[in-house]
Amino acid sequence: MHTLPNEQSDQSVVRGSTASPLAPEWLQVPSPDLNVLDASVWSRTSTRNDSGELTIGGVTATELIEQYGSPCYVIDETDARARASEIHSVFHQAFADIGAEIELHYASKALLTVEVAKWMVGAGLGLDVASLGELEVGLAAGVTPASIGMHGNNKTDATLRRAVEVGVGTIIIDSLQEVARLEAIATELGKVQPVLVRINSGIHASTHDFLATSHEDQKFGLTFDAAREAIAAIRRASSLEFTGLHSHIGSGIFEPAGFGAAAAKLMEFRAELLAHGPVPEVNLGGGFGVAYVPSDEAPSLAELARGIANEVARVCAETNSDLPRFVFEPGRSVIAPSGTTLYRVGTTKTVQVTAASGEVAPRCYVSVDGGMGDNLRPAIYGAEYTVRMANRAPDAPAQLVRVVGSHCESGDVVIHHDYLPQDVAPGDIVAVPVTGAYCFSMSSNYNYTPRPAMVAVSDGTSRLLVRRVEIEDLLSYDAAWTPSEGRDS
Amino acid sequence: MHTLPNEQSDQSVVRGSTASPLAPEWLQVPSPDLNVLDASVWSRTSTRNDSGELTIGGVTATELIEQYGSPCYVIDETDARARASEIHSVFHQAFADIGAEIELHYASKALLTVEVAKWMVGAGLGLDVASLGELEVGLAAGVTPASIGMHGNNKTDATLRRAVEVGVGTIIIDSLQEVARLEAIATELGKVQPVLVRINSGIHASTHDFLATSHEDQKFGLTFDAAREAIAAIRRASSLEFTGLHSHIGSGIFEPAGFGAAAAKLMEFRAELLAHGPVPEVNLGGGFGVAYVPSDEAPSLAELARGIANEVARVCAETNSDLPRFVFEPGRSVIAPSGTTLYRVGTTKTVQVTAASGEVAPRCYVSVDGGMGDNLRPAIYGAEYTVRMANRAPDAPAQLVRVVGSHCESGDVVIHHDYLPQDVAPGDIVAVPVTGAYCFSMSSNYNYTPRPAMVAVSDGTSRLLVRRVEIEDLLSYDAAWTPSEGRDS
Ligand SMILES: Cc1ncc(COP(=O)(O)O)c(C=O)c1O
Ligand SMILES: Cc1ncc(COP(=O)(O)O)c(C=O)c1O
Repeated sequence: MHTLPNEQSDQSVVRGSTASPLAPEWLQVPSPDLNVLDASVWSRTSTRNDSGELTIGGVTATELIEQYGSPCYVIDETDARARASEIHSVFHQAFADIGAEIELHYASKALLTVEVAKWMVGAGLGLDVASLGELEVGLAAGVTPASIGMHGNNKTDATLRRAVEVGVGTIIIDSLQEVARLEAIATELGKVQPVLVRINSGIHASTHDFLATSHEDQKFGLTFDAAREAIAAIRRASSLEFTGLHSHIGSGIFEPAGFGAAAAKLMEFRAELLAHGPVPEVNLGGGFGVAYVPSDEAPSLAELARGIANEVARVCAETNSDLPRFVFEPGRSVIAPSGTTLYRVGTTKTVQVTAASGEVAPRCYVSVDGGMGDNLRPAIYGAEYTVRMANRAPDAPAQLVRVVGSHCESGDVVIHHDYLPQDVAPGDIVAVPVTGAYCFSMSSNYNYTPRPAMVAVSDGTSRLLVRRVEIEDLLSYDAAWTPSEGRDS
Repeated sequence: MHTLPNEQSDQSVVRGSTASPLAPEWLQVPSPDLNVLDASVWSRTSTRNDSGELTIGGVTATELIEQYGSPCYVIDETDARARASEIHSVFHQAFADIGAEIELHYASKALLTVEVAKWMVGAGLGLDVASLGELEVGLAAGVTPASIGMHGNNKTDATLRRAVEVGVGTIIIDSLQEVARLEAIATELGKVQPVLVRINSGIHASTHDFLATSHEDQKFGLTFDAAREAIAAIRRASSLEFTGLHSHIGSGIFEPAGFGAAAAKLMEFRAELLAHGPVPEVNLGGGFGVAYVPSDEAPSLAELARGIANEVARVCAETNSDLPRFVFEPGRSVIAPSGTTLYRVGTTKTVQVTAASGEVAPRCYVSVDGGMGDNLRPAIYGAEYTVRMANRAPDAPAQLVRVVGSHCESGDVVIHHDYLPQDVAPGDIVAVPVTGAYCFSMSSNYNYTPRPAMVAVSDGTSRLLVRRVEIEDLLSYDAAWTPSEGRDS
């Protein structure tokens, strides 16, 4: 459905501007037409209409902002459903090719609304929840409890009780202490609860690399020694059913090797455990990376699926193991690319900055009406995004910009480095793609700022997924506040 | 009011434990009695009762958790009001000593509830707001608009209109574009709006140091050139009144020198501006640091006030300037030390970690029922805090711990490095002091996690400042959610 060419083809042609000495190396010199929407980062129905306006799901940015306020989180429903189906089919295909069963659980921490949960289930995915709240949303969406996996390094008794009561498919045990606690709860409720044990395997992966240590200095999982003890206890407990091992090695991963390394550790341990009973499942977690900026060369979901399937097949062959049932928990890779945030530009100003080279160059600060409240990732992870004009497609030359938010904090940056047309001005709407994951989820009301509405678009229509949180909503929790006379409430 | 001795006096005595090779240099070897509450980080009514339980404002940690749920943000009202009065009096004294007028505006971004705003006004402070939402809370608290200063690099027209309409005392202009916008709004409303101009002075300070550049690569303020133009335009505008200059140089600052450097830049510029009209006010922003851990040697408010007054007096003398009226905007230094967060321990487990020395040492991970959702500072700034047992005062020896939250993210850490008794166990309550600023403000509902209640304690009683945000409150914004039959809503 991408109707526009990929701008990566002619990176070197520049009109009216060269790369700024302030631009980082990975930032592509802007293509002659800054208005092109690079297919690697824009959701699939994103396009420009005849007036040059960005439309997503057939709805223009201007209409969305007018109807739902600015900023606005926009989810391309067609894209989200298609990605969910695609990840389901490419992983099933790749694992069928190696003769293994597979299941995918959507990691709901990435983005969870009642509707989004329904889309995921509709595409054949189960749900990975990591808190009582996430479980409640899944249940409110009518997700079959048996297809839910529940995580957490510190599940409360209330959370465990609710999970067992509703019949959650798997609970991922994260500590020795949790075994006894869950056993007691399941016994009391007269249930047999299937559980996985999360392993602190010492494998930690990021984009292009992985690190292997004897175990990681982190809060999740059990060391192999503790896991041995936990699994023995689980196998003794009549109210628990041991179904296998879990590991999650990181996030934003582009290469399959780290999954192979984790699989190797888990399969070796599994071989030992098989002597005392069945270990039908190995869950290798989530963490598949996506492109946030066009220069990120992310693998396709199909490549990643094949690569990971080949890694685990190799490991199983090398260790002479039968193939367990595999489970993965993708979050970001399913939903990040389907989200776009729209902002209204409020202020622009230019600062002359001394580059590392000693050269002085201008940086235009473009202030928008959101920021770290609706997208914490640049502030917390130094995450990079790209930005494009949304309400029009000017042919002004490119300038290096930093898009900043409205919060009273200098780290409140939306886009550290990108180009926008030189005529970007207050009142313009700009769009930031790939904001579907971990933006709404991690949003705050810092500076008493409303949370934007989240809207689904498809086939020329839009509808609310989550309404905007207004200032009065925030005040309504304040014990000393009484709604003012003038307004009805 | 501190009833307990300061543990810094005998740092070297250790019972049953030596410093771990994993402990960072700044972390003090635990004193023999791990239950001592170090006066440098605990709010002034924090003490232990006869059973060894932490009490704040005369209310025990257990009572608070039972009444308001866990986690719980606790504000020591006595401490907060006393600090607000103290900062008012020490700054007025120090500036009276140099013959200058002064005003303090509480930076409400640090922590804002209707009651907290009332306390600040009650102590003689004005209010610094940085958004429409913060302004609305201030107005709801009955703060005199004339004592409010309004900030923001990207104030919307609606925000400016509301500020002018209600008669906000000062609007701090942050861009050239804002001058025309505000002039039009004030004209339309038939008002004359006093304004300051925020300067991007090139001075940036942190704890012990400051950096001086020609101007900073940041979103706030106008360069001197842009400020010249802005001020000329303001002076021409009959609906605006130019009252002076503003600068904010950073946060967590322990040394007065950076304020002196900023004052020097502003006083030099002011001298130039005085040729064309009055410049009655110089606002040097906020940023005074506080101790987060006992080894932080923060100056007292009185020392800081004297140090800064002396710096500005020196600068004025050197430049032959008369003394303008000074304004400061402290946030953190007023409220951070008055807040303590209580958490319930859910899980403990120990990982053997290889230290930089090559030595292998244990780190105990203590999981609590909150985390980056209620205190983002460790995850976003690598901020350090200290932790102590709250429900009892065991005499077990010390162990190195990492206190982690319940969110599904490995960076979800509450305390990177501290000691707790070796018998800390699920069910215990632990307390983290100095959480009054930028914790509640930056809180999120990541993982669909409720926001804790915020409670004021004093003289043996407690009351709600802001009620807990429950899972159903979060769901109520979801457009596809309908309250379940079983519960009334
Ligand atoms: C256990 C587990 N599974 C799945 C995920 C989802 O990861 P991603 O969104 O990167 O696919 C996470 C993320 O933190 C996780 O901790
Ligand atoms: C303009 C301004 N004033 C005051 C403050 C308050 O700073 P602090 O809480 O560090 O005193 C800030 C903090 O960001 C600020 O930006």
